[in-house]
Amino acid sequence: MRYGIAVFPSKKVQDVANSYRKRYDPHYALIPPHITMKEAFEADEQEIENKIIPELSEIAKNTQPFTYGVYKVSSFSPVTNTIYLKIEPSEEIFELNDKLHAGELPDEKDFAFVPHITIAQKLSDEEFSDVYGSLRMLKFDLNDKVDRFQLLYQLENGAWSVYETFRLGKG
Amino acid sequence: MRYGIAVFPSKKVQDVANSYRKRYDPHYALIPPHITMKEAFEADEQEIENKIIPELSEIAKNTQPFTYGVYKVSSFSPVTNTIYLKIEPSEEIFELNDKLHAGELPDEKDFAFVPHITIAQKLSDEEFSDVYGSLRMLKFDLNDKVDRFQLLYQLENGAWSVYETFRLGKG
Repeated sequence: MRYGIAVFPSKKVQDVANSYRKRYDPHYALIPPHITMKEAFEADEQEIENKIIPELSEIAKNTQPFTYGVYKVSSFSPVTNTIYLKIEPSEEIFELNDKLHAGELPDEKDFAFVPHITIAQKLSDEEFSDVYGSLRMLKFDLNDKVDRFQLLYQLENGAWSVYETFRLGKG
Repeated sequence: MRYGIAVFPSKKVQDVANSYRKRYDPHYALIPPHITMKEAFEADEQEIENKIIPELSEIAKNTQPFTYGVYKVSSFSPVTNTIYLKIEPSEEIFELNDKLHAGELPDEKDFAFVPHITIAQKLSDEEFSDVYGSLRMLKFDLNDKVDRFQLLYQLENGAWSVYETFRLGKG
């Protein structure tokens, strides 16, 4: 089965992200707005229960909740036409990302970690120019807290279902 | 904020449900297939953190995982045109439902609890006759386990985001 790890922002931030995703993100219906902390990986239920969940519990226990800010929109262009709410980089989120790619956990990392909340993707080049041209002007003043992350699995239709919640700083 | 409590079936059962929901359920994109254990209720974050989550943890700790079967399709007609995968009633699921409407928890219950996974809703009467006429002939032989329930909150677009996972039989 395909699993992934994400942080879901507060309702406030999710609502802002959805106001753009609705129009510009074909994954709008597959998962709520999120910060991908670990890209999709294959595992069987045995591994998940016996190896991965204990490891994730340990990581959660040893990580304190932290805050982040969202002030602007950015893009992965020219690599992809994805547009996202930029998570103002904090040491804590990079540390958490590192922990989620160490030890017993699958450690493939194709790209450097850029913490973000996708709001537009799979746009044509022309759409991208239009949409990014206007979205890049936006200014936000959002502050939010990361106090948990979630292990999800993917259904056949591409949607993600939450399997387990890990609270930071809790045993 | 609006909260609710649901059990998400295994991927196997969710995939079966989605194969029908895709065509017949306008809520397809708002939440994965689920068994509603507690209808939407209003609460503020304070109440959720200080009162409701401790209560839910206690309930989860004192409830053992249990199994259920899905063998056929049924409907709430003539009350509504909702069509669902019928959860073969087990004492355990009714007990869990009772616990989730007792103590500190909001206890409004408009209807008797009928455990189910919705696969079609908001059909016109004509669509309903057609669709139910064919779906009611289906036979399933699905067996699944309930070993957790989830507390969710609703976003402005109507979608639900998981806030916390409660594992049955765990402290």
